[in-house]
Amino acid sequence: MSQVPIRILGVDPGLRRTGWGVIDVQGSRLSFVAAGVIAPDETDTLADRLASLHRGLLGVIAAHAPHEAAVEETFVNANPSSTLKLGQARGVAMLTPALAGLKVAEYAANLVKKTVVGAGHAEKRQIQAMIAVLLPKASVKGADAADALAIAICHAQHRGAAARLAAVKALA
Amino acid sequence: MSQVPIRILGVDPGLRRTGWGVIDVQGSRLSFVAAGVIAPDETDTLADRLASLHRGLLGVIAAHAPHEAAVEETFVNANPSSTLKLGQARGVAMLTPALAGLKVAEYAANLVKKTVVGAGHAEKRQIQAMIAVLLPKASVKGADAADALAIAICHAQHRGAAARLAAVKALA
Repeated sequence: MSQVPIRILGVDPGLRRTGWGVIDVQGSRLSFVAAGVIAPDETDTLADRLASLHRGLLGVIAAHAPHEAAVEETFVNANPSSTLKLGQARGVAMLTPALAGLKVAEYAANLVKKTVVGAGHAEKRQIQAMIAVLLPKASVKGADAADALAIAICHAQHRGAAARLAAVKALA
Repeated sequence: MSQVPIRILGVDPGLRRTGWGVIDVQGSRLSFVAAGVIAPDETDTLADRLASLHRGLLGVIAAHAPHEAAVEETFVNANPSSTLKLGQARGVAMLTPALAGLKVAEYAANLVKKTVVGAGHAEKRQIQAMIAVLLPKASVKGADAADALAIAICHAQHRGAAARLAAVKALA
Protein backbone atom coordinates (compact mmCIF):
# COMPACT_ATOMS: atom_id res chain seq x y z
CA MET A 1 0.00 0.00 0.00
CA SER A 2 1.53 3.32 -1.00
CA GLN A 3 1.12 6.25 1.31
CA VAL A 4 0.88 9.91 0.36
CA PRO A 5 4.11 11.74 1.27
CA ILE A 6 3.78 14.38 3.98
CA ARG A 7 6.15 17.30 4.39
CA ILE A 8 6.76 18.42 7.98
CA LEU A 9 8.28 21.61 9.36
CA GLY A 10 9.87 21.29 12.80
CA VAL A 11 10.67 24.43 14.79
CA ASP A 12 12.89 24.81 17.87
CA PRO A 13 11.99 28.34 18.97
CA GLY A 14 14.29 30.83 20.67
CA LEU A 15 14.49 34.62 20.71
CA ARG A 16 18.20 34.60 19.79
CA ARG A 17 18.22 31.54 17.53
CA THR A 18 15.24 29.62 16.13
CA GLY A 19 16.13 26.34 14.46
CA TRP A 20 13.96 24.96 11.66
CA GLY A 21 14.02 21.71 9.74
CA VAL A 22 11.89 20.25 6.93
CA ILE A 23 11.53 16.53 6.22
CA ASP A 24 9.43 14.37 3.95
CA VAL A 25 7.70 11.31 5.38
CA GLN A 26 6.29 8.47 3.31
CA GLY A 27 5.10 5.57 5.42
CA SER A 28 8.09 4.92 7.68
CA ARG A 29 10.60 6.47 5.26
CA LEU A 30 12.06 9.81 6.28
CA SER A 31 14.04 12.11 4.00
CA PHE A 32 15.81 15.39 4.60
CA VAL A 33 14.59 18.48 2.70
CA ALA A 34 16.24 21.50 4.35
CA ALA A 35 17.25 22.97 7.70
CA GLY A 36 18.59 26.20 9.07
CA VAL A 37 18.55 28.83 11.77
CA ILE A 38 16.83 32.21 12.00
CA ALA A 39 18.84 34.63 14.15
CA PRO A 40 17.24 38.09 14.38
CA ASP A 41 19.55 41.07 14.91
CA GLU A 42 20.01 41.33 18.69
CA THR A 43 20.38 45.10 18.50
CA ASP A 44 16.80 45.43 17.18
CA THR A 45 13.83 46.09 19.45
CA LEU A 46 11.93 43.06 20.72
CA ALA A 47 9.02 43.76 18.35
CA ASP A 48 11.41 43.96 15.38
CA ARG A 49 13.16 40.74 16.40
CA LEU A 50 9.79 38.96 16.58
CA ALA A 51 8.91 40.41 13.17
CA SER A 52 12.23 39.08 11.75
CA LEU A 53 11.45 35.65 13.17
CA HIS A 54 7.95 35.78 11.64
CA ARG A 55 9.29 36.81 8.21
CA GLY A 56 12.03 34.18 8.40
CA LEU A 57 9.53 31.41 9.12
CA LEU A 58 7.16 32.69 6.41
CA GLY A 59 10.12 32.49 3.99
CA VAL A 60 10.84 28.88 4.99
CA ILE A 61 7.16 27.97 4.54
CA ALA A 62 7.02 29.69 1.14
CA ALA A 63 10.23 28.01 -0.02
CA HIS A 64 9.46 24.45 1.14
CA ALA A 65 5.64 24.32 1.32
CA PRO A 66 5.27 21.98 4.34
CA HIS A 67 1.87 20.41 5.06
CA GLU A 68 2.13 20.36 8.84
CA ALA A 69 4.24 21.96 11.55
CA ALA A 70 5.50 20.87 14.97
CA VAL A 71 6.97 23.05 17.70
CA GLU A 72 8.89 21.97 20.77
CA GLU A 73 7.33 22.62 24.16
CA THR A 74 10.42 23.59 26.09
CA PHE A 75 10.59 24.28 29.77
CA VAL A 76 13.40 26.44 30.92
CA ASN A 77 14.44 26.04 34.50
CA ALA A 78 16.15 29.42 34.39
CA ASN A 79 14.63 32.67 35.61
CA PRO A 80 11.12 33.90 34.69
CA SER A 81 12.67 36.54 32.40
CA SER A 82 14.26 33.82 30.19
CA THR A 83 11.03 31.82 30.18
CA LEU A 84 9.06 34.91 29.12
CA LYS A 85 11.54 35.55 26.26
CA LEU A 86 11.30 31.95 25.11
CA GLY A 87 7.50 32.19 25.29
CA GLN A 88 7.49 35.25 23.05
CA ALA A 89 9.54 33.48 20.37
CA ARG A 90 7.40 30.38 20.79
CA GLY A 91 4.22 32.42 20.33
CA VAL A 92 5.48 33.63 16.96
CA ALA A 93 6.73 30.12 16.04
CA MET A 94 3.21 28.74 16.69
CA LEU A 95 1.34 31.66 15.09
CA THR A 96 3.23 31.92 11.80
CA PRO A 97 2.53 28.40 10.45
CA ALA A 98 -1.07 28.66 11.74
CA LEU A 99 -1.57 31.87 9.71
CA ALA A 100 -0.13 30.03 6.70
CA GLY A 101 -2.89 27.42 7.13
CA LEU A 102 -0.76 24.63 8.63
CA LYS A 103 -1.84 22.49 11.56
CA VAL A 104 0.63 23.07 14.38
CA ALA A 105 1.39 20.24 16.81
CA GLU A 106 3.29 20.57 20.08
CA TYR A 107 5.66 18.03 21.60
CA ALA A 108 7.35 18.06 24.98
CA ALA A 109 11.16 18.23 24.77
CA ASN A 110 11.44 14.89 26.59
CA LEU A 111 9.18 13.13 24.09
CA VAL A 112 11.23 14.53 21.21
CA LYS A 113 14.45 13.21 22.77
CA LYS A 114 12.88 9.87 23.64
CA THR A 115 11.53 9.43 20.10
CA VAL A 116 14.78 10.28 18.36
CA VAL A 117 17.47 9.04 20.76
CA GLY A 118 15.48 6.60 22.91
CA ALA A 119 16.09 8.49 26.17
CA GLY A 120 14.28 11.51 27.59
CA HIS A 121 17.43 13.17 28.83
CA ALA A 122 19.61 12.99 25.75
CA GLU A 123 22.35 15.53 25.22
CA LYS A 124 22.46 17.87 22.22
CA ARG A 125 25.39 15.86 20.77
CA GLN A 126 23.39 12.61 20.91
CA ILE A 127 20.53 14.27 19.02
CA GLN A 128 22.92 15.51 16.32
CA ALA A 129 24.43 12.01 16.02
CA MET A 130 20.97 10.41 15.64
CA ILE A 131 19.92 12.99 13.04
CA ALA A 132 23.00 11.97 11.02
CA VAL A 133 21.81 8.33 11.21
CA LEU A 134 18.09 8.96 10.55
CA LEU A 135 18.60 11.60 7.85
CA PRO A 136 21.97 10.69 6.24
CA LYS A 137 21.58 13.32 3.53
CA ALA A 138 21.07 16.12 6.07
CA SER A 139 23.73 18.81 6.11
CA VAL A 140 23.03 20.36 9.48
CA LYS A 141 25.19 22.96 11.11
CA GLY A 142 24.60 23.47 14.80
CA ALA A 143 22.34 22.14 17.50
CA ASP A 144 19.31 24.35 16.79
CA ALA A 145 18.68 23.00 13.30
CA ALA A 146 19.31 19.41 14.51
CA ASP A 147 16.77 19.91 17.31
CA ALA A 148 14.24 21.24 14.79
CA LEU A 149 14.73 18.13 12.61
CA ALA A 150 14.28 15.97 15.74
CA ILE A 151 10.93 17.72 16.40
CA ALA A 152 9.86 17.07 12.79
CA ILE A 153 10.82 13.37 13.17
CA CYS A 154 8.89 13.20 16.46
CA HIS A 155 5.80 14.54 14.67
CA ALA A 156 6.30 12.03 11.85
CA GLN A 157 6.20 9.22 14.46
CA HIS A 158 3.27 10.53 16.48
CA ARG A 159 1.02 12.32 14.00
CA GLY A 160 -0.91 9.16 13.14
CA ALA A 161 -1.69 8.49 16.80
CA ALA A 162 -2.66 12.12 17.37
CA ALA A 163 -5.01 12.11 14.38
CA ARG A 164 -6.68 8.89 15.56
CA LEU A 165 -7.11 10.34 19.07
CA ALA A 166 -8.71 13.48 17.63
CA ALA A 167 -11.09 11.33 15.56
CA VAL A 168 -12.11 9.34 18.65
CA LYS A 169 -12.65 12.55 20.63
CA ALA A 170 -14.81 13.96 17.83
CA LEU A 171 -17.04 10.87 18.05
CA ALA A 172 -17.33 11.03 21.86
CA MET B 1 1.98 75.95 20.38
CA SER B 2 -0.38 73.32 18.98
CA GLN B 3 0.78 69.72 18.97
CA VAL B 4 -0.11 67.01 16.50
CA PRO B 5 -2.51 64.49 18.06
CA ILE B 6 -1.12 60.99 18.51
CA ARG B 7 -3.28 57.87 18.76
CA ILE B 8 -1.90 55.14 21.03
CA LEU B 9 -2.86 51.48 21.35
CA GLY B 10 -2.16 49.92 24.74
CA VAL B 11 -2.17 46.12 25.11
CA ASP B 12 -2.30 44.01 28.28
CA PRO B 13 -1.50 40.56 26.88
CA GLY B 14 -2.79 37.25 28.18
CA LEU B 15 -3.52 33.91 26.57
CA ARG B 16 -7.05 33.77 28.02
CA ARG B 17 -7.87 37.48 27.91
CA THR B 18 -5.94 40.26 26.18
CA GLY B 19 -7.08 43.78 27.06
CA TRP B 20 -6.68 46.61 24.56
CA GLY B 21 -7.31 50.34 24.80
CA VAL B 22 -6.94 53.22 22.36
CA ILE B 23 -6.48 56.87 23.42
CA ASP B 24 -5.71 60.15 21.67
CA VAL B 25 -3.01 62.39 23.09
CA GLN B 26 -2.61 66.06 22.22
CA GLY B 27 -0.01 67.79 24.34
CA SER B 28 -1.05 66.85 27.87
CA ARG B 29 -4.69 66.24 26.90
CA LEU B 30 -5.83 62.61 26.86
CA SER B 31 -9.06 61.36 25.35
CA PHE B 32 -10.68 57.96 25.22
CA VAL B 33 -11.23 56.33 21.83
CA ALA B 34 -12.12 52.69 22.48
CA ALA B 35 -11.28 49.69 24.65
CA GLY B 36 -12.09 46.01 24.84
CA VAL B 37 -10.96 42.47 25.44
CA ILE B 38 -9.95 39.68 23.07
CA ALA B 39 -10.75 36.27 24.54
CA PRO B 40 -9.86 33.39 22.19
CA ASP B 41 -11.91 30.19 22.46
CA GLU B 42 -10.19 28.14 25.17
CA THR B 43 -11.18 24.87 23.50
CA ASP B 44 -9.09 25.75 20.43
CA THR B 45 -5.51 24.58 19.99
CA LEU B 46 -2.78 26.93 21.19
CA ALA B 47 -1.85 27.86 17.61
CA ASP B 48 -5.50 28.71 16.82
CA ARG B 49 -5.84 30.78 20.02
CA LEU B 50 -2.74 32.76 19.07
CA ALA B 51 -4.16 33.22 15.55
CA SER B 52 -7.44 34.52 17.09
CA LEU B 53 -5.48 36.98 19.21
CA HIS B 54 -3.53 38.12 16.14
CA ARG B 55 -6.70 38.59 14.07
CA GLY B 56 -8.41 40.41 16.97
CA LEU B 57 -5.54 42.87 17.33
CA LEU B 58 -5.36 43.37 13.56
CA GLY B 59 -9.09 44.20 13.66
CA VAL B 60 -8.54 46.78 16.43
CA ILE B 61 -5.66 48.35 14.47
CA ALA B 62 -7.72 48.43 11.27
CA ALA B 63 -10.73 49.96 13.07
CA HIS B 64 -8.89 52.64 15.07
CA ALA B 65 -5.67 53.27 13.12
CA PRO B 66 -3.31 53.94 16.06
CA HIS B 67 0.10 55.54 15.35
CA GLU B 68 2.03 53.78 18.11
CA ALA B 69 1.60 50.78 20.40
CA ALA B 70 2.67 49.96 23.96
CA VAL B 71 2.68 46.54 25.62
CA GLU B 72 3.01 45.77 29.32
CA GLU B 73 6.10 43.87 30.44
CA THR B 74 4.52 41.65 33.05
CA PHE B 75 6.34 39.32 35.35
CA VAL B 76 4.37 36.47 36.73
CA ASN B 77 5.62 34.97 39.95
CA ALA B 78 3.62 31.84 39.26
CA ASN B 79 5.03 28.67 37.74
CA PRO B 80 7.18 28.56 34.54
CA SER B 81 4.22 27.09 32.63
CA SER B 82 2.12 30.24 33.26
CA THR B 83 5.04 32.49 32.36
CA LEU B 84 5.58 30.58 29.10
CA LYS B 85 1.85 30.97 28.24
CA LEU B 86 1.95 34.69 28.98
CA GLY B 87 5.10 34.99 26.87
CA GLN B 88 3.36 33.35 23.91
CA ALA B 89 0.47 35.82 24.05
CA ARG B 90 2.92 38.67 24.58
CA GLY B 91 4.94 37.60 21.53
CA VAL B 92 1.82 37.91 19.37
CA ALA B 93 0.84 41.20 21.07
CA MET B 94 4.26 42.65 20.18
CA LEU B 95 4.42 41.13 16.68
CA THR B 96 1.00 42.14 15.36
CA PRO B 97 1.35 45.95 15.69
CA ALA B 98 4.96 45.69 14.42
CA LEU B 99 3.72 43.90 11.27
CA ALA B 100 1.15 46.69 10.86
CA GLY B 101 4.04 49.19 10.82
CA LEU B 102 3.59 50.58 14.35
CA LYS B 103 6.45 51.26 16.73
CA VAL B 104 5.95 49.07 19.78
CA ALA B 105 7.14 50.30 23.19
CA GLU B 106 7.39 48.19 26.34
CA TYR B 107 6.74 49.33 29.89
CA ALA B 108 7.26 47.46 33.15
CA ALA B 109 4.02 46.84 35.05
CA ASN B 110 5.34 48.84 38.01
CA LEU B 111 6.04 51.90 35.85
CA VAL B 112 2.53 51.70 34.38
CA LYS B 113 0.99 51.63 37.89
CA LYS B 114 3.29 54.38 39.15
CA THR B 115 2.45 56.61 36.17
CA VAL B 116 -1.30 56.16 36.43
CA VAL B 117 -1.93 55.70 40.16
CA GLY B 118 1.27 57.15 41.65
CA ALA B 119 2.32 53.91 43.34
CA GLY B 120 4.13 50.91 41.88
CA HIS B 121 2.00 48.38 43.73
CA ALA B 122 -1.48 49.65 42.94
CA GLU B 123 -4.40 47.25 42.96
CA LYS B 124 -6.54 46.58 39.91
CA ARG B 125 -9.42 48.55 41.47
CA GLN B 126 -7.22 51.62 41.94
CA ILE B 127 -6.22 51.51 38.27
CA GLN B 128 -9.85 51.30 37.20
CA ALA B 129 -10.72 54.27 39.46
CA MET B 130 -7.88 56.37 38.01
CA ILE B 131 -8.90 55.49 34.44
CA ALA B 132 -12.37 56.85 35.26
CA VAL B 133 -10.71 60.11 36.42
CA LEU B 134 -8.17 60.45 33.58
CA LEU B 135 -10.52 59.32 30.80
CA PRO B 136 -14.00 60.33 32.01
CA LYS B 137 -15.63 59.35 28.72
CA ALA B 138 -14.22 55.82 28.87
CA SER B 139 -16.76 53.04 29.15
CA VAL B 140 -14.55 50.23 30.34
CA LYS B 141 -15.79 46.87 31.45
CA GLY B 142 -13.33 44.81 33.41
CA ALA B 143 -9.76 45.07 34.62
CA ASP B 144 -8.04 43.94 31.39
CA ALA B 145 -9.27 46.85 29.26
CA ALA B 146 -8.55 49.31 32.12
CA ASP B 147 -5.00 47.96 32.37
CA ALA B 148 -4.57 48.36 28.61
CA LEU B 149 -5.71 52.00 28.83
CA ALA B 150 -3.25 52.51 31.71
CA ILE B 151 -0.44 51.21 29.47
CA ALA B 152 -1.49 53.61 26.69
CA ILE B 153 -1.48 56.51 29.22
CA CYS B 154 1.96 55.43 30.45
CA HIS B 155 3.25 55.56 26.87
CA ALA B 156 1.65 58.99 26.38
CA GLN B 157 3.63 60.24 29.40
CA HIS B 158 6.95 58.62 28.53
CA ARG B 159 7.11 58.55 24.74
CA GLY B 160 8.69 62.01 24.54
CA ALA B 161 11.50 61.02 26.88
CA ALA B 162 12.03 57.70 25.04
CA ALA B 163 12.23 59.49 21.67
CA ARG B 164 14.77 62.00 23.03
CA LEU B 165 16.88 59.17 24.48
CA ALA B 166 16.87 57.35 21.12
CA ALA B 167 17.94 60.58 19.37
CA VAL B 168 20.84 61.02 21.80
CA LYS B 169 21.89 57.37 21.35
CA ALA B 170 21.82 57.79 17.55
CA LEU B 171 24.24 60.72 17.85
CA ALA B 172 26.61 58.89 20.20
